[in-house]
Amino acid sequence: MRLRRKPGTIEYLMASPLVVNEPEEWQGKWQEYFANNNPLHVELGAGKGKFITTMTKLFKDINYLGVEKVPEVLLKAVKKAERIEVNSLAFLMLDIFNLPQVFSPGEVERFYLNFSDPWPKNRHAKRRLTNPKLLDYYRTILKPGGEIHLKTDNEQFFEYSLNQFALKGWQLQNICLDIAKRGPEFNVTTEYEEKFRAQGMKIFRLEALNS
Amino acid sequence: MRLRRKPGTIEYLMASPLVVNEPEEWQGKWQEYFANNNPLHVELGAGKGKFITTMTKLFKDINYLGVEKVPEVLLKAVKKAERIEVNSLAFLMLDIFNLPQVFSPGEVERFYLNFSDPWPKNRHAKRRLTNPKLLDYYRTILKPGGEIHLKTDNEQFFEYSLNQFALKGWQLQNICLDIAKRGPEFNVTTEYEEKFRAQGMKIFRLEALNS
Repeated sequence: MRLRRKPGTIEYLMASPLVVNEPEEWQGKWQEYFANNNPLHVELGAGKGKFITTMTKLFKDINYLGVEKVPEVLLKAVKKAERIEVNSLAFLMLDIFNLPQVFSPGEVERFYLNFSDPWPKNRHAKRRLTNPKLLDYYRTILKPGGEIHLKTDNEQFFEYSLNQFALKGWQLQNICLDIAKRGPEFNVTTEYEEKFRAQGMKIFRLEALNS
Repeated sequence: MRLRRKPGTIEYLMASPLVVNEPEEWQGKWQEYFANNNPLHVELGAGKGKFITTMTKLFKDINYLGVEKVPEVLLKAVKKAERIEVNSLAFLMLDIFNLPQVFSPGEVERFYLNFSDPWPKNRHAKRRLTNPKLLDYYRTILKPGGEIHLKTDNEQFFEYSLNQFALKGWQLQNICLDIAKRGPEFNVTTEYEEKFRAQGMKIFRLEALNS
């Protein structure tokens, strides 16, 4: 998603208590950051924040971090989150490739990948959030038994992701090729997802277990 | 596929040199049956025989067995195979659930499942050719490193199969959600497949490795 640079965005984000300005400093200490021992769930590409904000309201015993690289998008998520009373949600303005500098091995219980950019051209495969290098990062950062929950409307990205997880020996489960027909009973939607579903597009889902 | 009983069908099949009448007697001895040491590939649900007949013509160094339960369907396959000069192809009129009486552990190198009956109703899940019980049979009968190659037009059956293989810890590879768009360069079609593709329907494919 591309937005025009908007003056004041970075300043707003840096001043918000919901944005962690120097996340590397909390590596290995996220329970300290949240001042509790709750599990940590991280959404990679949090977009406009509907998913993670809703999850935060629903699950009080989980700490949530939303990672988003694009300031103008993150701003929308932060403003959404500011409207709710929470102390278990924060955001990181971060490139996913820098995750290993921000999380220690085993520190995260779950990653969410919701409607990630599919980067359909082969020459851009390295940017897909399920490329082999990032899967290795996730495996290291996830605790044993931790999970990745992925949703997408993009068939080609889903197929790529299935194959990458399988190649790397992740245990796949609850694979769904059309969540409107056979999806889980519990499903928190994202902004994109609502739009796509309204258009009757199929949404794919999988869980990959760090077994 | 349902066909009317046709008089003389069984008699024709039992008299054909291409049909193995008492397959249990060859358990553990299929190389002896074919009088060579070539690998054995078995199509489960051979239907009208286009796929396995074509494969037999293409790959001279493989022994092929086509398994088909319905006599009237098998008859079409046998008549098709009779038109080619081969000694590396035979058919079994057999229920898949009887496989363990016909093959010894490690005797088969590859199973093909092409457009198997999807049995969409939940109460019929036990009849699907990728149900847990049959996956255990296949694992035993396949040699280590052996593979199952599955194609189907049925999304729900494909999803079910993906999940069953994953649950049982099979190594999945070359998963494809639309072989017309991103399928393998080499693809021998079945009768059904040609019909479905002509209608523009998606065809799914996977390989499961007995790792």
